[in-house]
Amino acid sequence: MSGRILVVDDIEPNVRLLKAKLEAEYYDVITANNGMDAIESARQFVPDLILLDVMMPQMDGFEVCTRLKNDPRTRHIPVVMVTALDHQEDKVKGLEAGADDFLSKPIDDVALFARVRSLLRLKMVMDELRQREASGRALGAISDTMPRLDDTDTPANILILEDDERQCARLAHKLGEGYHLALCTDPREASERLDAENFDLLVVNLAARGFDGLRLCARMRSNDKGRVIPILALVNPDNREQIVRAFDIGVNDVLLRPVDANELTARVNTQLRCKHYADTLRQSLDSSFEMSVTDQLTGLHNRRFMQTRIEDALTRLERGVESASILIADVDHFKLVNDRWGHDAGDKVLQEVASRIKANMRAIDILCRYGGEEFVVVMPGSDINAAMQAAERLREAVALEPFELGSEHGTIPITISAGVTELFKGDTHETGLIRADKALYHAKSKGRNRVLSAGMNKGQLQESLG
Amino acid sequence: MSGRILVVDDIEPNVRLLKAKLEAEYYDVITANNGMDAIESARQFVPDLILLDVMMPQMDGFEVCTRLKNDPRTRHIPVVMVTALDHQEDKVKGLEAGADDFLSKPIDDVALFARVRSLLRLKMVMDELRQREASGRALGAISDTMPRLDDTDTPANILILEDDERQCARLAHKLGEGYHLALCTDPREASERLDAENFDLLVVNLAARGFDGLRLCARMRSNDKGRVIPILALVNPDNREQIVRAFDIGVNDVLLRPVDANELTARVNTQLRCKHYADTLRQSLDSSFEMSVTDQLTGLHNRRFMQTRIEDALTRLERGVESASILIADVDHFKLVNDRWGHDAGDKVLQEVASRIKANMRAIDILCRYGGEEFVVVMPGSDINAAMQAAERLREAVALEPFELGSEHGTIPITISAGVTELFKGDTHETGLIRADKALYHAKSKGRNRVLSAGMNKGQLQESLG
Repeated sequence: MSGRILVVDDIEPNVRLLKAKLEAEYYDVITANNGMDAIESARQFVPDLILLDVMMPQMDGFEVCTRLKNDPRTRHIPVVMVTALDHQEDKVKGLEAGADDFLSKPIDDVALFARVRSLLRLKMVMDELRQREASGRALGAISDTMPRLDDTDTPANILILEDDERQCARLAHKLGEGYHLALCTDPREASERLDAENFDLLVVNLAARGFDGLRLCARMRSNDKGRVIPILALVNPDNREQIVRAFDIGVNDVLLRPVDANELTARVNTQLRCKHYADTLRQSLDSSFEMSVTDQLTGLHNRRFMQTRIEDALTRLERGVESASILIADVDHFKLVNDRWGHDAGDKVLQEVASRIKANMRAIDILCRYGGEEFVVVMPGSDINAAMQAAERLREAVALEPFELGSEHGTIPITISAGVTELFKGDTHETGLIRADKALYHAKSKGRNRVLSAGMNKGQLQESLG
Repeated sequence: MSGRILVVDDIEPNVRLLKAKLEAEYYDVITANNGMDAIESARQFVPDLILLDVMMPQMDGFEVCTRLKNDPRTRHIPVVMVTALDHQEDKVKGLEAGADDFLSKPIDDVALFARVRSLLRLKMVMDELRQREASGRALGAISDTMPRLDDTDTPANILILEDDERQCARLAHKLGEGYHLALCTDPREASERLDAENFDLLVVNLAARGFDGLRLCARMRSNDKGRVIPILALVNPDNREQIVRAFDIGVNDVLLRPVDANELTARVNTQLRCKHYADTLRQSLDSSFEMSVTDQLTGLHNRRFMQTRIEDALTRLERGVESASILIADVDHFKLVNDRWGHDAGDKVLQEVASRIKANMRAIDILCRYGGEEFVVVMPGSDINAAMQAAERLREAVALEPFELGSEHGTIPITISAGVTELFKGDTHETGLIRADKALYHAKSKGRNRVLSAGMNKGQLQESLG
């Protein structure tokens, strides 16, 4: 996949050379000659990747990288630092500034292009998620006040796959405290654990003699669960072919052996940060779904969810799989509760009614708040007789014990009225609800605290025997 | 990226050969020797790609492909048909059965692997969307009853970029009726139109002498808008390097020249189908967001949306950008309307109140249904004085003219009471709403049809002068 690459270097011939090479590979290249311009270009053109020189006058690459990674507008753009520096501490400093990789000049083009392809491929998937999330935010469906993924307290789960136990232990020692490590020497065991448990990262030695680490990486990239786990591969620096292959298979990062402890930690943290970001995006879409079908006051499902469930029941009904009934319940004289004891007391009553209904219905029944003081229960598999019995049980559960409203108000008696109807072929969720609502209306006019059913025929109303 | 590939062929040596080649490239390979097993394996192991032989006893490849593409469980898996048949009609038949490509034996490995990489890369992005959508469905936030993308009536917009006008016209002629075609001979013009208009497909001649078509494709793949438009490239069959390059850059499909009209149509339709599927997935996530912040009855924003907007206003307030106020309005004696004229009349009253408020507030104000018969208006930039004036205007707009409930009920007078408060630093949306609610309570107890404001100090309530 092609993409837009920003090349940043203060030495013009370097810029021109790299631009020419990248354009020969059909990338779209933009350039900058200093740190400020680089940041400006990154904001304006939002490239897919930034190749960033370290040593520049005024603002050096470390500073540029730090600023890009602290800016929500550019944070998601992968940065590869490219430099003549080859001190280990510079590398670690770059990675800690948020760089996704740090390559020393002279750059091996084949390895660079493999790296570029890999980063662009990963970004493409993340972009799709980011765009959906942005769209959810723009519509107000996703916001920072939503429940968030919070795993900052739990240490990351890392699986280390190495040749033998001594090497495993050495690597674990280099990585130090703060992680939850699982050590493996057998690729089959590693594979099983990756399937069965939840890991945040795999660190695998591709130079191992006892197994083909690349094969394991390829297998992970061939199933939905393994695909989202980042992989950091340890390779011998002279095995260029393996490095290229690793990136093309879907390994996220490569660390050259012998392993430097600080670089290991920096690269591990980079991968964990990326995974956390991806998890957060997915989670944020999922919570938006959850919240969209949840009633805020009671935590019950809302009207929207109820509709989908009635439609499901109707689909099964049309196929002749099973019958289904629905019930609408309304709290009797609810307005009086609100007027006399205030909205807080009213809210408490709704919550208590919800919890009593929930405790007395079957696990497969679906309770939703229909609006105001009305609740709907969808009862899959229940014909009208079963549904009437269930409804009567719910009515009793509410009426039996008065409601405790706290020391301020004491207890008050609360009752509900309910209308029940079986669903029939040809029904929609609207026609079903209208019938149940009619039965409810009659239950109310007959004196409340009772359950009535409505058949297909308009006039056909029947009171429960309870 | 690696992936799981299902190889289907009734001749065992063929299966073994292809398996060996793919495994050497680190793909995870599963195999099947006949059509039924292939379908079974596809359902069970859900591979990322299927390489499907055409000529098999019992069920041939066309039938297998048709079945896979008609099954929701396997529809999304790309299928490449591989065959010794090289009749043009077989190729078209395969594409029409839903195959994503049709390759003739002997297979050129380099071209095959480029094709495989390209299909797997595209699938990876789609998988991420599909998984989010599946998760929305599982939670009931996305359902088939939701408003759907409906563009089956509008013809697809296709841009054709060819060497000269005669070639353009010839291609347009081959494609026939049913599409909306734009013909271009200049890549710069094509690029501008792709940016400015909405195209569903680009058909580009990479063998053109007048321009570098690959460069245009690369540029399209370097920006968010161009990235989602499929590209069908026309190439000379002997230019293998270009074919491989095209797939690697992000071209979706390749058609060998000279162009066969039926194959062109089949490949165009395949790309349009894929785009429609991707659009539908994105659209379905976006509508779920929209519905999650919309009140079903009034079509207004709901409580959840209101919270995000109050939080936004508070953020601007904390930064000292501007003041903000909120208002809670409640329909007076609403229960009486419901009890006397029924729920339908009640719903009509709520809708009419909403529409009168909307017509009389500023465009930047945000009206939400808070629940039951309560509405909230968020007023960015308004201090308490401006907000009180606005609130008084809204109260008047409701009270001035009685409500028309249709011939059955005639007209009834409706009024609202409202509580207004300015937001201050340190407020949350809860504290703001509690203050406004207190003012509303006093407006009610003072006789309704009036507006009161509440300051930071609890006792500080003030009636509007209206």
